[in-house]
Amino acid sequence: MNKNVKQAEKGSVGIVEIQYFTFGHAPDELILSNGDKLGPVTIAYETYGTLNSEKNNAILLNHALSGSSHAAGYYSSTDKNPGWWDAYVGPGKAFDTDIYFVICSNVISGCSGSTGPSSINPATGKPYGLDFPMITISDMVNAQYHLIKHLGIDKLLAVSGGSMGGMQALQWTISYPEMVNSCIAIATSASLSAQGIAFNEVGRQAIFNDPSWNNGKYYDGEVPRAGLSLARMIGHITYLSEKHMHEKFGRNFQDSGAKVKNLSSEYSVESYLRHQGIKFVERFDANSYIYITRAIDHFDLKEDYGGNLTFAFENVEANFLVMSFTTDWLYPSDNSREIVRALRVNGKNVNYTDIVTDNGHDAFLLPSDVIEKNISNFLRSEFRKSIKQV
Amino acid sequence: MNKNVKQAEKGSVGIVEIQYFTFGHAPDELILSNGDKLGPVTIAYETYGTLNSEKNNAILLNHALSGSSHAAGYYSSTDKNPGWWDAYVGPGKAFDTDIYFVICSNVISGCSGSTGPSSINPATGKPYGLDFPMITISDMVNAQYHLIKHLGIDKLLAVSGGSMGGMQALQWTISYPEMVNSCIAIATSASLSAQGIAFNEVGRQAIFNDPSWNNGKYYDGEVPRAGLSLARMIGHITYLSEKHMHEKFGRNFQDSGAKVKNLSSEYSVESYLRHQGIKFVERFDANSYIYITRAIDHFDLKEDYGGNLTFAFENVEANFLVMSFTTDWLYPSDNSREIVRALRVNGKNVNYTDIVTDNGHDAFLLPSDVIEKNISNFLRSEFRKSIKQV
Repeated sequence: MNKNVKQAEKGSVGIVEIQYFTFGHAPDELILSNGDKLGPVTIAYETYGTLNSEKNNAILLNHALSGSSHAAGYYSSTDKNPGWWDAYVGPGKAFDTDIYFVICSNVISGCSGSTGPSSINPATGKPYGLDFPMITISDMVNAQYHLIKHLGIDKLLAVSGGSMGGMQALQWTISYPEMVNSCIAIATSASLSAQGIAFNEVGRQAIFNDPSWNNGKYYDGEVPRAGLSLARMIGHITYLSEKHMHEKFGRNFQDSGAKVKNLSSEYSVESYLRHQGIKFVERFDANSYIYITRAIDHFDLKEDYGGNLTFAFENVEANFLVMSFTTDWLYPSDNSREIVRALRVNGKNVNYTDIVTDNGHDAFLLPSDVIEKNISNFLRSEFRKSIKQV
Repeated sequence: MNKNVKQAEKGSVGIVEIQYFTFGHAPDELILSNGDKLGPVTIAYETYGTLNSEKNNAILLNHALSGSSHAAGYYSSTDKNPGWWDAYVGPGKAFDTDIYFVICSNVISGCSGSTGPSSINPATGKPYGLDFPMITISDMVNAQYHLIKHLGIDKLLAVSGGSMGGMQALQWTISYPEMVNSCIAIATSASLSAQGIAFNEVGRQAIFNDPSWNNGKYYDGEVPRAGLSLARMIGHITYLSEKHMHEKFGRNFQDSGAKVKNLSSEYSVESYLRHQGIKFVERFDANSYIYITRAIDHFDLKEDYGGNLTFAFENVEANFLVMSFTTDWLYPSDNSREIVRALRVNGKNVNYTDIVTDNGHDAFLLPSDVIEKNISNFLRSEFRKSIKQV
């Protein structure tokens, strides 16, 4: 651990590096849900902690829409931005890297090292763009399966994630029941609401409306900055609760001295959103935004199992920790309760907590003692049980 | 009443016509809140029913963001779309045109006949565009004042409106206390929330991002269709409740036979929003959308009175009917309760109802027996009292 890393005192995994795993060379391409083939497939991933000799301490973290493999630590000694789940991943933290071997990979169709629409299409030698095949949450999980096997792991102590990461975690327990000891699903749903689809759609339309988008062919020129930035701004509104926004920004102006109200006077909340939009464009690909939001829209465990969520979880072997947030209106607590009920009807072992917070959907990314304790207690108990089984 | 008007059976005001009133010719321009002058000012308005000889049966309706002077009736015998509040305005309806003289005018900065950014700037002979001055809710009301005086009315039996229309109604009771006998404020607020400002802002950004917008100078060429349409789509999400959206659209595809899930598969909710966006562009001006949403953002009765809403209502003489909707998350019920509390602290006469509905913010535009009865009982009582006073 590098002492120069500012926030990397107690509990940081320190400096980390992206690793890459490639599979699916012809004729062994990854077969996608719609029958299309994708190959070769590269998965960008990071690991924290050490896989033990029994190989029973591995935990897979799944990121949300805008995430990456960079769940924890820093990329350099001057890096000021730790990974997206640094609050929960590190020595002594919920995902305790002194005990567990933690893996996080970028989803396929993403843009942070894994194969996606900005990758080179071997058939043309140019970026895929919209020729990239449609990817489902199930496809993301199937690609991760290859990575987990490559790492020599037959059974994961836990799969975990919030939002779309929670969808992947649920899908893991269904697609590979024998490989998943436990599942931590946070602020997620068995399917997105009509309102959620609507918000994803206006985000996509913001990108489509940007002339630079050019039907997905922009890798040689201007990227659709304005469109992607606006999509992110729209998204951000849905991640925060009304109350949190009120407390954080109220009706304040960005320039606190400004009292002139005209067309261009800037409220703090507007400035915040614009800043979020601009930052996002630096690190995210517009086509990936389109593909990933579509994967979220299409995810539907009920539909996959004849309209009955109970049937989806019938063969699941994992134990579950499900958490939702009282002010999350994008993935409301009722969505989690529906999952919990379907699991319990199947006699599965489920811990469920609806956490009281003002932080809205974003709460799964923010430090919280309640989340910390729920995860660490659940994992310790699951790890003890799995050791006994060995 | 023309019998050919299809839906114009019992309760319709029948065929109606826009009227125009122009005032504010130099040197008597309308002085705006920021000190700017606007003139000449044309107000488009419609009236339904007959002003009685005592001139004590006049009711002013105030429209919301996307409304117009066309509150009731039809423009022709083949017109299929009645005015925006036709459910409540007509013979025997809540705003009973057999009893009351009902007036509705298009706000200044609007685009349905009243002076706004698409009007000709007398200084240049070209449309104002962004040279149009900043308009506040208070300015809208001050312009309406001239219309009401022009119609020979000294005291309004009631001012009424939902959403931004409710803001105008509240402002009327404060700006012209002696002219307002009663106020019906529906689904409104003394100031918009940070979340509401945020949604208005992403709508505006959608317009700004459209190259056809051209900094507001598009009246000679292509209008910013895509941008305005997207702004409307975003708005529409906020007008509906999550439950209403779920019940109306669920996760259905527009083409009910479609089972292929790809990038372009269209969910019903997406199709609905796109349709709303396209329809809107036919009748609305993008610059007006920018000016009016800004007027909504800037409205703040608390700030106007030293941060205390109680002081805002100190000199108000009107009696109040305040209504909110349980599933309205854009103008939540708490916003109405804040108004009610401030009025009651001042000893004002207030009826308040939080109406249980799944219809979200849109509820104020939709037919409802509860709204109907609340308004008609309140108005009858107010009219009886005002007759006694005479």
